[in-house]
Amino acid sequence: MKPVVLFAAHPDRWAAYDLPLRRAFSDAGLDVDLRTDAAPEAVDYIIYAPNSDVQDFGPFTRLKAVLNLWAGVEDVVGNTTLKVPLARMVDSGLSEGMVEWCVGHVLRHHLGIDAHIHGQDGEWRNGIVPPLARNRQVAVLGLGELGRAVAMALSALQFQVSGWARSQKVVEGVSCFAGAGGLGKVLSRAEIAVLLLPNTPETTHILNSETLSQLPSGAVIINPGRGPLIHDGDLLSALDAGQISHATLDVFDVEPLPAEHPFWAHPKITVTPHIASETRPDTASQVIAENIRRGETGQPFLHLVDRAAGY
Amino acid sequence: MKPVVLFAAHPDRWAAYDLPLRRAFSDAGLDVDLRTDAAPEAVDYIIYAPNSDVQDFGPFTRLKAVLNLWAGVEDVVGNTTLKVPLARMVDSGLSEGMVEWCVGHVLRHHLGIDAHIHGQDGEWRNGIVPPLARNRQVAVLGLGELGRAVAMALSALQFQVSGWARSQKVVEGVSCFAGAGGLGKVLSRAEIAVLLLPNTPETTHILNSETLSQLPSGAVIINPGRGPLIHDGDLLSALDAGQISHATLDVFDVEPLPAEHPFWAHPKITVTPHIASETRPDTASQVIAENIRRGETGQPFLHLVDRAAGY
Repeated sequence: MKPVVLFAAHPDRWAAYDLPLRRAFSDAGLDVDLRTDAAPEAVDYIIYAPNSDVQDFGPFTRLKAVLNLWAGVEDVVGNTTLKVPLARMVDSGLSEGMVEWCVGHVLRHHLGIDAHIHGQDGEWRNGIVPPLARNRQVAVLGLGELGRAVAMALSALQFQVSGWARSQKVVEGVSCFAGAGGLGKVLSRAEIAVLLLPNTPETTHILNSETLSQLPSGAVIINPGRGPLIHDGDLLSALDAGQISHATLDVFDVEPLPAEHPFWAHPKITVTPHIASETRPDTASQVIAENIRRGETGQPFLHLVDRAAGY
Repeated sequence: MKPVVLFAAHPDRWAAYDLPLRRAFSDAGLDVDLRTDAAPEAVDYIIYAPNSDVQDFGPFTRLKAVLNLWAGVEDVVGNTTLKVPLARMVDSGLSEGMVEWCVGHVLRHHLGIDAHIHGQDGEWRNGIVPPLARNRQVAVLGLGELGRAVAMALSALQFQVSGWARSQKVVEGVSCFAGAGGLGKVLSRAEIAVLLLPNTPETTHILNSETLSQLPSGAVIINPGRGPLIHDGDLLSALDAGQISHATLDVFDVEPLPAEHPFWAHPKITVTPHIASETRPDTASQVIAENIRRGETGQPFLHLVDRAAGY
């Protein structure tokens, strides 16, 4: 009997994934029954977006795994009805897109591009030369798949890159720090800080008035990670005090960011609408197919979530 | 007798170079008489900026070489009073700065960052996702020291990079084309074109109405090379027609760009004030010292200009 695979995501996603999934299953030699609707007790695998209608996994009595379409799992990892393995999306397209967005915005702030975009007034201001990247300190908070890729790309451009994670990591070309003690060290040198941490109880509001004050005066914050990593009010205070010179934010506590939120109108904040990176249907479908192939042949799943750690 | 080295550049440069040059000479084991003023017939080497007061090399009867402080030599290479070897500046700092500026502006246009900088109006526009760099075609025109470095950095970020030069070059990860026949091929695929050609009679107005029309509709031009590479009027027409969607220009026929020049006010042009890259005194002084050391020990000079080719 063919395994039944339920695609449980926001309905507008089906148009993007229908064909790439079928192609990926075919390429992997898998004969599956791919459906957007199925009796729960018949389903073997769920391709899952946490904003889908499926929130109670209890009725899915023969379920073998939930294969998340998103890199972030904070909206599903705490679901107590989920008793089977949960895999995160680790998509090469997601990682490449994130590297491009982060490197682009780091260089934008490093080079001071905004001043030129805003300064088209006929005045030739050539007095301010930025330091070379090799004399610019950048910190990447979070050294998972995305953080590592971003840190290595910045290091390849000769930035001085420090990295921080909960546990000690080793990343080529990056000075890695860990734990509560290491955070202050990384922040104290970071002229530009990029947030790529998962959203967990430990990382919520990790940038607050205390940690923002540990950054060098005039530091830049770039957050393509998760909205709750930053305490919004503390960030606004640090911007208004000049402690932080600019924040480019792609993620927010509530999305879409409400039009009346003070971030939109703040002259030192650039809001981008959660576009830093997206799962790409072609490459993501290949990851899904490989995990189903593994499930069907008794091999361990890739990219399993550590349910206790929350990511 | 100590060799006499004349520093002939705009007076405000002396403050930046005095100490780095002395340090570099000392590090190279050279005992020289470094001066900002000297009788021409006593001078062995000139450290030269083409905008200095020295324009007639005739009186410098014992001159061994002119060591240019700038990468560009178009304002000195045609000087018929110059009879001794002329070396260009090839400075690792210059190259690094150029890579940073070019990669920053390529990513800015690739990602569509300006739309977000200008669009802080409360509307959540997340519908437009750029392609991945691996699906974006970028051309680098000019494959000298700077062009090669920029092309390789873009290729490392997975852009599809084509390169063009007068003669056939080989650059790892870059599809190289040459000559008049190759130019059309490179332009026809370039969604973003970066100009890093030298300014020679052959390259003057290399971007004109004909070649601009060979680019894909909506292409972006980035010019950190030389102002005369582009025909200003043809560029304005191509921008107004929508054939070119944006031009970011760092160099101009006349600098500073006059306040009344139409580039300043054009909504599809970003003017930057010749800051893409600068010679850095520390590293440039080491290059100068090495060439004087070579001259004093009878070794060939580095980075000699091909006077016939003009660069």
